[in-house]
Amino acid sequence: MSFSSFLTDTRQRVERVLDSYLPADNSPAPELHAAMRYSLLGGGKRVRATLTYATANMIDCNLATVDPTAAAVEIIHAYSLIHDDLPAMDDDDLRRGKPSCHIAFGEATAVLAGDALQSLAFETLTHPCADLSGDQRCEMVAELAIAIGAAGMAAGQTIDLAASQLGLDLNALEQMHRLKTGALIQASCRLAAIAGGADKNTHQALDAYSANLGLCFQICDDILDVTASTDQLGKPSGSDDGRQMPTYVTLLGLNGAHAAAEHCSELALDSLTQFGPEADLLRELVKYQQQRTH
Amino acid sequence: MSFSSFLTDTRQRVERVLDSYLPADNSPAPELHAAMRYSLLGGGKRVRATLTYATANMIDCNLATVDPTAAAVEIIHAYSLIHDDLPAMDDDDLRRGKPSCHIAFGEATAVLAGDALQSLAFETLTHPCADLSGDQRCEMVAELAIAIGAAGMAAGQTIDLAASQLGLDLNALEQMHRLKTGALIQASCRLAAIAGGADKNTHQALDAYSANLGLCFQICDDILDVTASTDQLGKPSGSDDGRQMPTYVTLLGLNGAHAAAEHCSELALDSLTQFGPEADLLRELVKYQQQRTH
Repeated sequence: MSFSSFLTDTRQRVERVLDSYLPADNSPAPELHAAMRYSLLGGGKRVRATLTYATANMIDCNLATVDPTAAAVEIIHAYSLIHDDLPAMDDDDLRRGKPSCHIAFGEATAVLAGDALQSLAFETLTHPCADLSGDQRCEMVAELAIAIGAAGMAAGQTIDLAASQLGLDLNALEQMHRLKTGALIQASCRLAAIAGGADKNTHQALDAYSANLGLCFQICDDILDVTASTDQLGKPSGSDDGRQMPTYVTLLGLNGAHAAAEHCSELALDSLTQFGPEADLLRELVKYQQQRTH
Repeated sequence: MSFSSFLTDTRQRVERVLDSYLPADNSPAPELHAAMRYSLLGGGKRVRATLTYATANMIDCNLATVDPTAAAVEIIHAYSLIHDDLPAMDDDDLRRGKPSCHIAFGEATAVLAGDALQSLAFETLTHPCADLSGDQRCEMVAELAIAIGAAGMAAGQTIDLAASQLGLDLNALEQMHRLKTGALIQASCRLAAIAGGADKNTHQALDAYSANLGLCFQICDDILDVTASTDQLGKPSGSDDGRQMPTYVTLLGLNGAHAAAEHCSELALDSLTQFGPEADLLRELVKYQQQRTH
């Protein structure tokens, strides 16, 4: 399978899966339901689902087996964006080129849509599947819960919010990103590895891969925030600077940030050396995300 | 075991369990962690945990087996109170006699503390336990997720928020409460029934019991909101009236609300007629909550 057809196929695949898990017109609170669909199905790069499917592909696990996993990590990502955009948080009015959820539906509904999406992600992981034991599904629930909780994504967002006042040095910035975005990116691979029954060695390689890919992704985001237009990003460009947030660009300069991204890419690729062509999709993903323009 | 010693024992028990699941000084984001402990361990009646333990007691399931369950339903309850109290939601400054989470820690941290508590509840349910199969634990995760999601608690809160503008008739009010508080109360029994391997008949009886107990609980809350003092409630009394919310008291009058509570109590007790003394704790809980003063 070529990388570009893999990207197209898996994006379409996860859109179909997400739509089926959150069917239209099926809620006692239609406004809440509409807000959830608005934010979940409103496009996006589907990086996390793509990682899940690419990992499954590498370890020869059926893509159907990880459909709930791919959906769950995208559902969590959508919930986190809704809450991050709230006025009390990053106060962003624009997301994926559209009004943020709280602009479109009001703040209360946005809080609740995020909350309900989080629940939906966990429900999704419990779907019965002939290929997955109850213990495996439980382990996936636990991994996801830990990745996004008080020692993961939520902690990262807390640190991020304090950063505009406190400042962060490079180590602290990396720690923040490892929690805020890295933990869920890592879970996107790890859950697929659990589903596919990967051995310990493969788990470790994927952890190293995804940790470095996650950092690379974040550094590239910081670079794009100063080099791309609002139109390309679908959210206000230069928004980090407006909040005086420490970024890889403010700490390292544009050239330094490019070098750091390159370094993380190499580490991500290095972690896959023990694998053959079965890891090519994961390798291509590293290059792809370095070359993206939004 | 006497009912009062059961109440005391189970409250102490769940406090210990909750404290152990959220140990002090154990987070990369101490402020977030402090907010979670502040809201989770700040007292409360522990109605939901008590229901879980009383159900386990009835079906002869070890209390230790449902410790994670009792903790999970209380963690979800704490998260829902934090988010419900937010300025964009019910805008309540006082909770359990203390400043609400967003007053004490700021709005952003409160949103994130609620978010991280939700994740913690699901993580909690996955704890390995010799008495529970992976399939059972998964079923419990699924039940809880459905109870609190877009067809449950979150939907109920959405309907509640719209109610001050739209008004609700008695049927709509009941539907709102069945979702907003009833679904989690029902889950508190149902998860214990799953853990204890209860048969279908017992499940149905417990569903009927908890649905009616939940409504009775809500009607009594509405009554207390007009008859108890702020001091007794630990939150502003008369707050429903201040928001012009439809309540059982505004729709039925005080006497009518008392009669409705009595009716729900009877239905809850009726659903337990097939059981002997093993259901006495659940029976006592009905009377206890009708007699409470806060």
